[in-house]
Amino acid sequence: MTRFALTIEYDGRPFMGWQHQDHGPSVQQAIEDALHAITGENALVHAAGRTDAGVHALAMRAHTQIEKDIGAFRLMEALNARLRPAPVAVLACEAVADDWHARFSCVARHYVYRIVNRRATLTFDKGLKWRVPAELDAGAMHEAAQLLVGLHDFTTFRSAHCQSASPVKTLDRLDVMREGDEVVIHASARSFLHHQVRSMVGCLAMVGRRQWSANDLAEALAAKDRARLGLNAPPDGLYFVRADYP
Amino acid sequence: MTRFALTIEYDGRPFMGWQHQDHGPSVQQAIEDALHAITGENALVHAAGRTDAGVHALAMRAHTQIEKDIGAFRLMEALNARLRPAPVAVLACEAVADDWHARFSCVARHYVYRIVNRRATLTFDKGLKWRVPAELDAGAMHEAAQLLVGLHDFTTFRSAHCQSASPVKTLDRLDVMREGDEVVIHASARSFLHHQVRSMVGCLAMVGRRQWSANDLAEALAAKDRARLGLNAPPDGLYFVRADYP
Repeated sequence: MTRFALTIEYDGRPFMGWQHQDHGPSVQQAIEDALHAITGENALVHAAGRTDAGVHALAMRAHTQIEKDIGAFRLMEALNARLRPAPVAVLACEAVADDWHARFSCVARHYVYRIVNRRATLTFDKGLKWRVPAELDAGAMHEAAQLLVGLHDFTTFRSAHCQSASPVKTLDRLDVMREGDEVVIHASARSFLHHQVRSMVGCLAMVGRRQWSANDLAEALAAKDRARLGLNAPPDGLYFVRADYP
Repeated sequence: MTRFALTIEYDGRPFMGWQHQDHGPSVQQAIEDALHAITGENALVHAAGRTDAGVHALAMRAHTQIEKDIGAFRLMEALNARLRPAPVAVLACEAVADDWHARFSCVARHYVYRIVNRRATLTFDKGLKWRVPAELDAGAMHEAAQLLVGLHDFTTFRSAHCQSASPVKTLDRLDVMREGDEVVIHASARSFLHHQVRSMVGCLAMVGRRQWSANDLAEALAAKDRARLGLNAPPDGLYFVRADYP
């Protein structure tokens, strides 16, 4: 029995999300099916984060446990050969200790959200970025974002379906920067609530469009009330980019 | 009658190329159809470069001539609304002088070719970049590329279907640089032969994989013989990025 840590890239567009779903394909199922084809075993795959339908990953971390005697490199190659029709690729694979857990051992999660701030419709990036036609003030967005950094009750920015025990989380980083016609938001925390990044980005976009002041954002946070959320950004622009382990 | 210059972005994957084709959709046809729907006229669209099937553009320049009294901004918005289901977007539109010609007034064309140098299959970039699994020496590729810069007979790097009057062209720039797991090639010239960039990139990849020396490349060029071409790179990684006008 060997435990393997996987680094996985996926385009979330054709998937109902990371996790098994009755009503459509999931990334988890695609990888478990490939593992079954390779080993004949029913190995489960556990990820650092359970991304929603349409959300992407540049380097999701996950683990699985295999009885078959197979090396890490061969397992990675076999997985990529099996996964090939789906937009899922294993970028790295290594044997790890039996107590290494992609979810529970993870000490920090990093997301990026990409907004294309232009009038013209998207071509290459349909479903991969969020297009906002009205001009965004990225400086004002960054300034307002700092109000959300730190220890807060994020109830306003939490989906009704969130399964987290507590709405209180520490947000370590929320940086907004303009890169040409893109506005890029970097978010880091030990863990996030369901829809937290998309909800924060949606409200920051309202600040960027000057529909909200920084004070409106502070009041929405303080209200601890989902009904006070300004806007939930679409999944299109959201990428899980890194998980940290001790 | 007003002449408009257009700046156009397109994902080449679903198209048979820029130019009208009997056997499939073209970017030119998509734009002419949209113009017809907006104006009722049968306006033609002329581009700076006629990209092949599967080749992309970040900023193709083109022009058209319209009888209808319509401003540049409204024309751009109407085109994008009509084009929307197709991955084609008009990024800019401006009225120009009646003798401004997207093809004949153009004094320099710039292409970028993107190789992903990794073993894992592509997810987001299927059809958008060329994956080369074997490690590429970008430094050796850049050095060899300099042998192609300047005035040469590029017969070896020219498709049998090339309609250019002469195979003699001046290549102004051919730079190869590594950006993480990508190898990016920048090519600039007043004009290129049919398949020239893809043929040069294919041979440079052979140099990068150490299947060819720089001397092999020099000999292939000197041979002026298409049969001496090492490899024609796929269209996937090729982008028309800029056209210059006086």
